Amino acid sequence: MRLKIKDMDIATGGPLVAILNKNDALKFDLHHMDRIKIIKGKKVETVAVDIAESDKAVPQGSIGVFEEVINSLGLKNNDKIAIKLARKPLSIEYIKKKLDGFRLAKKEIDQIVWDIVHNKLSAIELTYFVAASYTNVMSIDETIMLTKAMARHGNILKLNRYPVIDKHCIGGIPGNRTTMVLVPIIAAAGFAMPKTSSRSITSPAGTADTMEVLADVTLSMNEMKKIVEKTNGCIVWGGSLNLAPADDKIISVERPLEIDAESQLLASIMAKKYSVSSTHILIDIPIGNGSKIKNRAEAFHLKKHFEEIGKRLRKHVKVIITDGRQPIGNGIGPALEARDVLWLLKRDAKRPLDLERKCLLMAAEIFKMVGIENGKKKALELLDSGKAYGKMLEIIKAQHGRLANPGEIRLGKFTHDAKSSRSGIVRGMDNKLISRIARVAGAPNNKGAGIYLYKHVGNKVKRNETLFTIYSESSEKLKYAKEILRQAECFKIK
Amino acid sequence: MRLKIKDMDIATGGPLVAILNKNDALKFDLHHMDRIKIIKGKKVETVAVDIAESDKAVPQGSIGVFEEVINSLGLKNNDKIAIKLARKPLSIEYIKKKLDGFRLAKKEIDQIVWDIVHNKLSAIELTYFVAASYTNVMSIDETIMLTKAMARHGNILKLNRYPVIDKHCIGGIPGNRTTMVLVPIIAAAGFAMPKTSSRSITSPAGTADTMEVLADVTLSMNEMKKIVEKTNGCIVWGGSLNLAPADDKIISVERPLEIDAESQLLASIMAKKYSVSSTHILIDIPIGNGSKIKNRAEAFHLKKHFEEIGKRLRKHVKVIITDGRQPIGNGIGPALEARDVLWLLKRDAKRPLDLERKCLLMAAEIFKMVGIENGKKKALELLDSGKAYGKMLEIIKAQHGRLANPGEIRLGKFTHDAKSSRSGIVRGMDNKLISRIARVAGAPNNKGAGIYLYKHVGNKVKRNETLFTIYSESSEKLKYAKEILRQAECFKIK
Repeated sequence: MRLKIKDMDIATGGPLVAILNKNDALKFDLHHMDRIKIIKGKKVETVAVDIAESDKAVPQGSIGVFEEVINSLGLKNNDKIAIKLARKPLSIEYIKKKLDGFRLAKKEIDQIVWDIVHNKLSAIELTYFVAASYTNVMSIDETIMLTKAMARHGNILKLNRYPVIDKHCIGGIPGNRTTMVLVPIIAAAGFAMPKTSSRSITSPAGTADTMEVLADVTLSMNEMKKIVEKTNGCIVWGGSLNLAPADDKIISVERPLEIDAESQLLASIMAKKYSVSSTHILIDIPIGNGSKIKNRAEAFHLKKHFEEIGKRLRKHVKVIITDGRQPIGNGIGPALEARDVLWLLKRDAKRPLDLERKCLLMAAEIFKMVGIENGKKKALELLDSGKAYGKMLEIIKAQHGRLANPGEIRLGKFTHDAKSSRSGIVRGMDNKLISRIARVAGAPNNKGAGIYLYKHVGNKVKRNETLFTIYSESSEKLKYAKEILRQAECFKIK
Repeated sequence: MRLKIKDMDIATGGPLVAILNKNDALKFDLHHMDRIKIIKGKKVETVAVDIAESDKAVPQGSIGVFEEVINSLGLKNNDKIAIKLARKPLSIEYIKKKLDGFRLAKKEIDQIVWDIVHNKLSAIELTYFVAASYTNVMSIDETIMLTKAMARHGNILKLNRYPVIDKHCIGGIPGNRTTMVLVPIIAAAGFAMPKTSSRSITSPAGTADTMEVLADVTLSMNEMKKIVEKTNGCIVWGGSLNLAPADDKIISVERPLEIDAESQLLASIMAKKYSVSSTHILIDIPIGNGSKIKNRAEAFHLKKHFEEIGKRLRKHVKVIITDGRQPIGNGIGPALEARDVLWLLKRDAKRPLDLERKCLLMAAEIFKMVGIENGKKKALELLDSGKAYGKMLEIIKAQHGRLANPGEIRLGKFTHDAKSSRSGIVRGMDNKLISRIARVAGAPNNKGAGIYLYKHVGNKVKRNETLFTIYSESSEKLKYAKEILRQAECFKIK
């Protein structure tokens, strides 16, 4: 059967979908989400079927296709193509198996990941997979198979180095920009640390957003490799490297319900570490309200699983559980965080000491993993001698640097000082609310927007003293941020 | 914030969705599947957000909307509207609760059903609900609450009659057109039987498709009520009556994985019975390969649940388990089945005796439920006296009848006789394959297409004897049907 291409001019953002007119669908006995092969010359692509109820959307004799299909087959509007019935992806059967509570075999998990990466599953089918692995929790064996499959169906960085250091923090804490301090310290000590980071999704800044204030973060795998070979380190955005690409697609269907299947969380993190060939990995699990992990029991459970998976993947994995009850560092938002980092590396008096303490602790853990005792002292020496800052300058330059001097960092010119309504001691801070205000002020898309904290938990505060300043690049956004501020309290003072 | 309407000219088939340009989404910090309110004058509608990556699909300053939103707000292309952040539907929290294995309360199930009916949930969110109730099986209490909620959020037929008879067959068996024999028998006996039936989705014909050969089946609730008041019975398509409309939306996300959550199955059937105010319900569970229920254990489990739910809903429910290993009746496909039914009612020698036996058995069960002994004899009398046929003529006429004489039924003019390749006894028949051939030949959309069987299980067959005839309205479809016939055997003869 031959049909005429109608370019729908929309991207699905993943799944390969084509729309048939209701009458054509009847004619071929095709139903919603059946699979057909679209054949154009020698090219063939299998897509899922959607049905148009009206002739306006897709007339009889035509087939509506979204961008992904257009690109995959090199189609043009009004092209003639042939269609043929196709089988559903094999993985649908395996997803059903998991939903029925059975364990999956290696080749089944592999097929599911392959189908996800190649956009063969509809959002509904992918959702069943996530729901199945959420309610019928994956075993450690399955999680390891999922980890390897996610890494294998994506790019892999191969480095001729040992050890290769990596770190990861289970998010949720504003500020907390440890990567940008640790990479220069570890690289200055002579170890390879090819760090890939994410951009923010729901926080005021991801490490990639913050590093982008200083240098390019969207690099190719090849360029990244060259930089690490030259400088030992890098801080780049993982999103452009096609590392474990199944992960992003899985996350996209997790978000509507804000669920985080444990096996997906573990596999997602470990697959990305596996993809950059890390050998020694430090995982930081901050706990506290507003952080992703709420309590000690949950953290210990996760720690045990990370260590088990690490062992089975033949990676050295060390997990630390840290205090996640308040922001770490003073700046929140890309420019403000980048300034904190540079102050810290340049040993400026204005540097945030809580961030420094955490980075020294983490550096010590990393050094211990590779056999270096007194790692805290060594890390402090690398900071105080200027070697870490020197290394950061090298990395910034290698990543087509923008700036490396904290004085050059531009902050939003619209500001508002939030004052304390009473005297007392700061007993707690609301991570979620602080993040929200920084985001409404414009972070992370407006690099100069965010919050700068003058007080942390345990500090004394006088009535009318400034607790923090909100920065914004637009007066309107500042207004919205102030509105949120009026509705709730970021600081608990008693 | 004000945006310009761009009519996307596509229906989603349910969920209310609007598409924002990537940059506008960034500006408002909106993500995929966040909710916004669209405000046009005094009308407000809450919709889910999708993000367009390209300016081609939705330019900055515009908002792309699908048909459902266009209709809900009465929008036109280039209309100016305002948007505002909205909360996610309440039911998302409850769906997550079910996914986490907890039981749902009445008001939570009610909210979920309300949100489903009003298109407030995306396909992904609805899928989580189905997956959750599939893996964390709903309790009887929850199933009853779901049943009532599904019925309540839809139309309800109110009849001033007692008892009100109904029946349902858990599908999968080709032919098996018992409804069209039972309704005239029961109605002729003076009982109300306001029967709503479905159209075929994956079978060669649903009862609504078959009845449509003889009369209109797409009637309004009001018209249906009048017909039942006048004739005691009707056989109409349930799809146009908006009975338990949540059910169809749930089924649409079940289909991709072909799962059938037990609680959904029970609630779906019972909600539709509840919606027509039935008081006495006969449920037929055929078992056998190719039928929906495969074995006796499964059937008994389901029987127990139907009876329990019936008791709790204060309905008289009787469940029979029948033989579903082969088609019932000789005709398969709308016209061929309608002819069987008319032959049976007119006491023609060509009537299918297996269908007659099953209908007499079912009629007896129904009569027993309403206190009539010797129901089988009574049913046979109603048939033999012509009273049942007379009642069928009344019903056909009330439903703007087309024809009532089996001789007037037009069958597909392209035919093929399938012959036996050997002599022996028919030991088995492949329901699925027989259905598939009838569908490929054109059923149910081509009313005259299908299969007419000359042999059933247990019959003797000679080599080269005709087993069945395929009817089609197009030579090409007949060709396809013959191709499938060549690949596999419908009859097991030994």
